[in-house]
Amino acid sequence: MSKGSKTTPSRRQFLSGAAVAGAGLAVAGTARAAGDPLITEVQSWARGLGDGVDATPYGLPIKYETDVIRRNVPWLTADSISSVNFTPIHALDGTITPQGCAFERHHSGAIELAKDDYRLMINGLVETPLVFTYADLERFPRVNHVYFLECAANTGMEWAGAQLNGAQFTHGMIHNMEYSGVPLKTLLEEAGYDTAAKWIYVEGADASSNGRSIPMDKALDDVLVAFKANGEALRKEHGYPVRLVVPGWEGNLWVKWLRRIEVTDAPVESREETSKYTDTLDDGTSRKWTWVMDAKSIITSPSPQAPIQHGPGPMVITGLAWSGRGAITRVDVSKDGGKNWEPARLAKPGERMALTRFYLDTIWDGQEMLLQARAMDETGYVQPTKAQLREVRGENSIYHNNCIQTWWVQEQGQVENVEVS
Amino acid sequence: MSKGSKTTPSRRQFLSGAAVAGAGLAVAGTARAAGDPLITEVQSWARGLGDGVDATPYGLPIKYETDVIRRNVPWLTADSISSVNFTPIHALDGTITPQGCAFERHHSGAIELAKDDYRLMINGLVETPLVFTYADLERFPRVNHVYFLECAANTGMEWAGAQLNGAQFTHGMIHNMEYSGVPLKTLLEEAGYDTAAKWIYVEGADASSNGRSIPMDKALDDVLVAFKANGEALRKEHGYPVRLVVPGWEGNLWVKWLRRIEVTDAPVESREETSKYTDTLDDGTSRKWTWVMDAKSIITSPSPQAPIQHGPGPMVITGLAWSGRGAITRVDVSKDGGKNWEPARLAKPGERMALTRFYLDTIWDGQEMLLQARAMDETGYVQPTKAQLREVRGENSIYHNNCIQTWWVQEQGQVENVEVS
Repeated sequence: MSKGSKTTPSRRQFLSGAAVAGAGLAVAGTARAAGDPLITEVQSWARGLGDGVDATPYGLPIKYETDVIRRNVPWLTADSISSVNFTPIHALDGTITPQGCAFERHHSGAIELAKDDYRLMINGLVETPLVFTYADLERFPRVNHVYFLECAANTGMEWAGAQLNGAQFTHGMIHNMEYSGVPLKTLLEEAGYDTAAKWIYVEGADASSNGRSIPMDKALDDVLVAFKANGEALRKEHGYPVRLVVPGWEGNLWVKWLRRIEVTDAPVESREETSKYTDTLDDGTSRKWTWVMDAKSIITSPSPQAPIQHGPGPMVITGLAWSGRGAITRVDVSKDGGKNWEPARLAKPGERMALTRFYLDTIWDGQEMLLQARAMDETGYVQPTKAQLREVRGENSIYHNNCIQTWWVQEQGQVENVEVS
Repeated sequence: MSKGSKTTPSRRQFLSGAAVAGAGLAVAGTARAAGDPLITEVQSWARGLGDGVDATPYGLPIKYETDVIRRNVPWLTADSISSVNFTPIHALDGTITPQGCAFERHHSGAIELAKDDYRLMINGLVETPLVFTYADLERFPRVNHVYFLECAANTGMEWAGAQLNGAQFTHGMIHNMEYSGVPLKTLLEEAGYDTAAKWIYVEGADASSNGRSIPMDKALDDVLVAFKANGEALRKEHGYPVRLVVPGWEGNLWVKWLRRIEVTDAPVESREETSKYTDTLDDGTSRKWTWVMDAKSIITSPSPQAPIQHGPGPMVITGLAWSGRGAITRVDVSKDGGKNWEPARLAKPGERMALTRFYLDTIWDGQEMLLQARAMDETGYVQPTKAQLREVRGENSIYHNNCIQTWWVQEQGQVENVEVS
């Protein structure tokens, strides 16, 4: 009988490579089929009834996945409570981050604030100071967008050298969710903002208040007053019931438990934008107002927490890329520490200020690799090497490290965080 | 000082309406600001520390949202265990459904099957019968797509009349997730399928096996062998570790705990496609192979479980639309039971075989409404009225009811499921 041959040349090219292992799979498969009780015997789970749906009115991951959780690095912050954790990006695929394992950071703990107790004040240079209840906000036109949130300190421990041995810890201060909310522009227009006003000052209802200044142009552009993420209410740790969404800009501006927006003619120069969240350079001076998260990428698998667990042959190298300046247009992958590059496949065309999943479908020869990914965005910006970044920024900052990451894949498949000169 | 005036005519037109309530809000706001301790006094949650991040390595919804869960209708199925539940679509926004509250249905319970115990066999009309382990599957090129899954029986209780009083129960047998997996075409090519083969037969590892026949053309088109949903592993109740994804086609074809794919020259005519999942017509004959889910829409808010809780003035009417034949291109909303229609705003351009969120930003006059939504897809198909559907399908079937739904909004804002002649 004639065999399927609907493959494109490129697919055939890949499968000709895969066929080697494919045959291997087939042989192993045959052996399995003959001698593998998991195939030849009726298993316990096929004999009786499983759980009814009432067992999980709200489901959690299956017990076999209990290691796929947010993790903390206790020594990272000096707070009296653990105040930062990391998304297990090494174990995820696609682009959406479930709220339950999505990176979160706070400055005085995640508070419990009921919708009925929620108030949002808009004051300052406005015609009519307003206070909105949660129910008020639901009466304004709202929009949905998938946006990434990245902490300014993501990868911040890597400036001086390779330190944290896992993608979750080097690059996990990020999440990507579908946010639903009211454009801030709509609420500012409702209050009648002074067109001479150049800034807004936003603060949260928690003890830290985490006040930040944002230029009016950004506030009127794409900032959202959001109350849903991935379809459902914000989780407590993500700012229930209302948070600010500031697309492409550093996460600390995305104020949680949003309480007040003051329209001003100048920035407040708050603690969080002077002693914190400014980038100290080699000469001791600091860059300020470094809000935008530049283009960046990370290979999530293989990585130290996700080693290669098979022999030579077909494998998938995958990771994430993003840019605060727009859409990702291209990602290249190197297996030799940056000497040679090959273009990765983007799962979908890049979306503005959202994570893009990339894949390199390749053949592993079983030898060592120095894996790197390099992102490019629609502005033409190219993700820099660590050397290039150090040249202009030095090593004093913990913020805005978007350099190319290197994973050393060893012959047995283990992976380590390393630097290449 | 000059006031913000960057509004488009349409936005201004809306705000002129909103301004009435806006002024109302302002007045109330002023009153609140003066006398509302939630604004004038420092609250308990602003005095001390909230929870540290270690409190939620994997987060759940906040305690105030415990009513936003999947719900069962015990009398709906005769099974010895509860076998179906419904997504709380009345309480969600955006388009993504979190796995934890996403509709699920099974025929012999949700089983626990570890990745190490997982095997997928491809046999029948193939050159080389193969057995894949979970690790094998991860070595093939994979893709990501957001797709809706709708049960053929969704809205099935409404054929004879308005029965279930809530969008969750009339239209909640649906979810919309970002699936990651290997195209089935790739695995069939690996086994070398016979081009004379016209069907595949797929079955699961649970006791029911839920075997279904699928035409080869669909199998080679867009069907996925998926292992991730919304970025993370499939939940137990969604088929962990591997399920089939059959875009746009009825949910029972999306076999969970996928065990075997047999390439055949004819359909198997299994129980699930003869005595079940065929549509009985008025004359007692049955439509079979009714796989595609036709264009459909539902207003999720206001709805019986989400009544209007404010007086006349600005309000947002919102809902979901989808089509198994492609992208949603337009949704119209009627307030008078279908006499007059106005176009709704699509949150994003429709995506093929995925949920589309629509909004109607409008002014409520405080009077009764008979709310309806009507979806159109890229093929030009228009969602039918219940009368039109009954005319061709009668009332004997419980499957493929995609008719226009009517919600009766009463003067106090309560909403009821009704029919209009």
